[in-house]
Amino acid sequence: MHKNILKWTETHLFTQKEAPVDAEIPSHKLMMRSGFMKKLAPGLYSYGNIGLRAIRKFENILREELQKAGGIEILMPMVQPKELWMETNRWTEMGAGLLKFKNRNDHDFCLGATHEEAVVDYVRHDLKSYRDLPKNIYQIQTKYRDEIRPRFGLMRGREFVMKDAYTFDMDQAAALKSYDDMYKAYQRIFDRLNLQYRIVQADAGNIGGSQTHEFQLLAEAGEDALLVSDTTQFAANVEVCPAIDFETPKAGTMPQVTMEKFETPNQKTIADLEKFTSVPANQLVKTLFYSANDGTNAKDSQLKPIAVLLRGSDEINPIKLKNVLGLTNEPRLLSDLEVKEVSGAHPGSCGPVGLKIPIYADTGIMHLQNYILGANEDHFHMKNVNHDRDFKITKTADLRMAKAGDKCPESNGKLVSFRGIEVGHVFYLGKKYSEKMNGVFLDKNGRSQHYEMGCYGIGVTRTVQAAIEQSHDQDGIIWPKAITPFHVHICLLDPKDQASTDYVNQMAKALAEKNIEVFIDDRDERPGVKFKDADLLGFPVRIVVGKKGFEADQIEVVDRKTKEIFKIAKLDVEKKALELL
Amino acid sequence: MHKNILKWTETHLFTQKEAPVDAEIPSHKLMMRSGFMKKLAPGLYSYGNIGLRAIRKFENILREELQKAGGIEILMPMVQPKELWMETNRWTEMGAGLLKFKNRNDHDFCLGATHEEAVVDYVRHDLKSYRDLPKNIYQIQTKYRDEIRPRFGLMRGREFVMKDAYTFDMDQAAALKSYDDMYKAYQRIFDRLNLQYRIVQADAGNIGGSQTHEFQLLAEAGEDALLVSDTTQFAANVEVCPAIDFETPKAGTMPQVTMEKFETPNQKTIADLEKFTSVPANQLVKTLFYSANDGTNAKDSQLKPIAVLLRGSDEINPIKLKNVLGLTNEPRLLSDLEVKEVSGAHPGSCGPVGLKIPIYADTGIMHLQNYILGANEDHFHMKNVNHDRDFKITKTADLRMAKAGDKCPESNGKLVSFRGIEVGHVFYLGKKYSEKMNGVFLDKNGRSQHYEMGCYGIGVTRTVQAAIEQSHDQDGIIWPKAITPFHVHICLLDPKDQASTDYVNQMAKALAEKNIEVFIDDRDERPGVKFKDADLLGFPVRIVVGKKGFEADQIEVVDRKTKEIFKIAKLDVEKKALELL
Repeated sequence: MHKNILKWTETHLFTQKEAPVDAEIPSHKLMMRSGFMKKLAPGLYSYGNIGLRAIRKFENILREELQKAGGIEILMPMVQPKELWMETNRWTEMGAGLLKFKNRNDHDFCLGATHEEAVVDYVRHDLKSYRDLPKNIYQIQTKYRDEIRPRFGLMRGREFVMKDAYTFDMDQAAALKSYDDMYKAYQRIFDRLNLQYRIVQADAGNIGGSQTHEFQLLAEAGEDALLVSDTTQFAANVEVCPAIDFETPKAGTMPQVTMEKFETPNQKTIADLEKFTSVPANQLVKTLFYSANDGTNAKDSQLKPIAVLLRGSDEINPIKLKNVLGLTNEPRLLSDLEVKEVSGAHPGSCGPVGLKIPIYADTGIMHLQNYILGANEDHFHMKNVNHDRDFKITKTADLRMAKAGDKCPESNGKLVSFRGIEVGHVFYLGKKYSEKMNGVFLDKNGRSQHYEMGCYGIGVTRTVQAAIEQSHDQDGIIWPKAITPFHVHICLLDPKDQASTDYVNQMAKALAEKNIEVFIDDRDERPGVKFKDADLLGFPVRIVVGKKGFEADQIEVVDRKTKEIFKIAKLDVEKKALELL
Repeated sequence: MHKNILKWTETHLFTQKEAPVDAEIPSHKLMMRSGFMKKLAPGLYSYGNIGLRAIRKFENILREELQKAGGIEILMPMVQPKELWMETNRWTEMGAGLLKFKNRNDHDFCLGATHEEAVVDYVRHDLKSYRDLPKNIYQIQTKYRDEIRPRFGLMRGREFVMKDAYTFDMDQAAALKSYDDMYKAYQRIFDRLNLQYRIVQADAGNIGGSQTHEFQLLAEAGEDALLVSDTTQFAANVEVCPAIDFETPKAGTMPQVTMEKFETPNQKTIADLEKFTSVPANQLVKTLFYSANDGTNAKDSQLKPIAVLLRGSDEINPIKLKNVLGLTNEPRLLSDLEVKEVSGAHPGSCGPVGLKIPIYADTGIMHLQNYILGANEDHFHMKNVNHDRDFKITKTADLRMAKAGDKCPESNGKLVSFRGIEVGHVFYLGKKYSEKMNGVFLDKNGRSQHYEMGCYGIGVTRTVQAAIEQSHDQDGIIWPKAITPFHVHICLLDPKDQASTDYVNQMAKALAEKNIEVFIDDRDERPGVKFKDADLLGFPVRIVVGKKGFEADQIEVVDRKTKEIFKIAKLDVEKKALELL
């Protein structure tokens, strides 16, 4: 049998009419129904032959494009010793997502969820001179992340395939050039999938680094909220998108009125207060309390309370707060009890007046004057409050979530929202890892320098699922041609009829020789079953060959995406299939 | 750059003059020195680009040959839940080599060292009818085994790449046919490496199963002792090789003499006794004590003492004893204290006479009459002992190690010994797993049946190392052509000389177009350094191009294996290289 031909009866493929109940989004349902994968345990999937083919095709696209960018493929261990992760303090910083265990000799190990430490260890004894730079090293590997609640199939799975790349450069200019080369390689990679995606500004998380972009495939079910300018190329993950009002701040334009306490019995939420006071939410101020540490240091167990002020109509952006506070992970919201201890009141009646802790204000507060906020006494608020006069702000910063309709940071246009699935991420890391792990080289002047690094990830299995999430209809998957498991799906309706079966085998072989991958449904099943399965599996071109059509010289060729049906003479079927591909 | 060409300056490759001290055998040393891999932690290696190329080539050989045998490739998770392994009791039986851990939700998981459970779970909801059989499913995957003392590089590593295949059949005859097909596929696979190997009878270990063969690459440093007939095709791992003397048993041919106790002060070992009594070791009898349980059941904590009798010149074979006792793992040798409790004497003075425990005798004992053994009293032995008369044997069986010079079990030839590296293993499993995991199908008569299984492993990374262990010389690796990372190694001696560099680039391109993989050493290094590295890296054909040779139209083409040097005119170099490949 030619390697580009697979017969259904010679593989292991069982489609399902119904998806399991834990499959919530279309792609997850379709991957379970089509035999793409099977669940072994929550977040742990076996990939069937069909699924593996799509994954391998995407891996090969990655290899081709990364090689063009100078990428060198290696393969590092999944199991890694604690000592390595202690060098960067990420043994602690990574939190519970890093799966840790002791081996039989009682040594500590983890399952590598990312390989910055491992790759620096790989190169640090080799890179001795500026002549050894630049280097661009990548691997395609199974990784494990201990998701607390795995869901959405491969999107939030525990075990998954990832491509991770790392660049090493002699200075910042060279590192930013490497960043740019990889950015362009990623564009080529996602362009080849022929799907809709956006490149957005993003947060670096606990990887670290100052410049970073996410590659987001657009899909309703995406976990990420994106904001895109309707005027410029600006696009950002809502996590980091600057929040800018169209109006200019009004504060200071009206006379300040005397601050006054007033009773607000049981008025706890902004919605309550809006109704009670008839003042709109965007004129009210809410106060949130956090502890300004993130558990990555031993001394972080003690409470470091801070207050954060926002307009009642705005939402806190914990990533922005984390970055303003200079933390590695997001700060912890105080419990009601802790809030009471710090402010003297329960949440809903708290405010900054009289507090002895640092007070951070979102820039939205600068639009307000003579405003209402909690009195630090249950069932009481203050009105006609003014910052500077009635309390001091420690720092004013952009701390709120941007939203659709906000002003574009680069123009007078406005932001439009999308949902996206993060499939790729590029980071400029600088010297964070080389400094901590003593990764040095001698520069042209013979001086020891730490190299500049970048790191670059693509979720391989996640991208394949995201492609399905963006490209399907009610009947099944519509595979992008670049990663489809097979190009042509032949429904052989009468596998016991010699003439039409011979014709199919010859056609399959002719296509296979042209590097077209052909799947033949040669099961002993009714045509209706075969057509439904062909739609579900979703290979781009379907060819239907039955005894009747064969004898009438009328073969059906169907475009999976448009569902357009062409009736073609036997001799022209191959040509038509190639035309559609 | 063509995908079949790699320049040294464009990859990450640093060779070493010295191997690390923990590298004990030639292949391990060469793999470390040649940049094939780097150690991250004991038993955990990163594969460099060169190493990965060899591994991937071998993986593709596996895919090609397994597809011919009907193999269907899938990919199962590495992390697996405890519940799955409880179904077969292997959560306990596998012992400490199975790495177990708790995830953040406090659930038990392990790193799959083998996938019988996972693959049965994969198919058991699909295989409903005899029409769905046979199936032959395989994967190529990174596995982890928690070796207590990793050594020999990838040979006893912790993380390694393995190909594991599983067959499912409707009855025994079909299962043995599948076994045979896989056996032949394995022959084709190892034949393609063009290395010396032997197929030997072996023990099934805790995989289970009644028919099994090991594929052993021959090498001095191999961990397995093999015995091969000098007359027939018979070959076996010493673990299971029948031990047969050339002489026929003598017992019963001489009159029995009265048993008598005699003093043997401080005569503890067989060597002591041989000297003291002037009776040769093969006429003396030694007694060993074991507990006939292996810790796989809860009730196994209690002692079940047995005695085993062997001729003084023979060694116990614990695998044979395990199989005779019907255990999953090898039985435990009793401590001196336990022996004293059971027999009344310390080891060295013990024997079967008067014991109340089961007594197992090796068949070698049947050659003896009126023999000497311990009296169960310190410093005393008995002479003129005869079984049946003086004590009862519970069971006589082949319990000793066979050795070179023993009789071939199939002929009058004799056994010759080899050392081997186990690179492949095929098992006929029967219904062991399908019965425990409720893997059933409806047969032609509509009756529910458990399917018959086989499992088949090839150590991918281990095979690549074993190939180097068998194929190297004092200067470096001699890559088998089937898995060599590159076919041709060009030493470009004057990379700044335009004419000879252009010639090399053109030649490389011409070879690359013919699917020959070309490595170009374009470093700014002395010829001596380049030649040493070429020998170390060990690609089959070396072409040396310097300004001088180029201008004289005398290009050196070197066969890495024979070290034969050919002086070839520029126009004929490509032809000569192809001829050598």
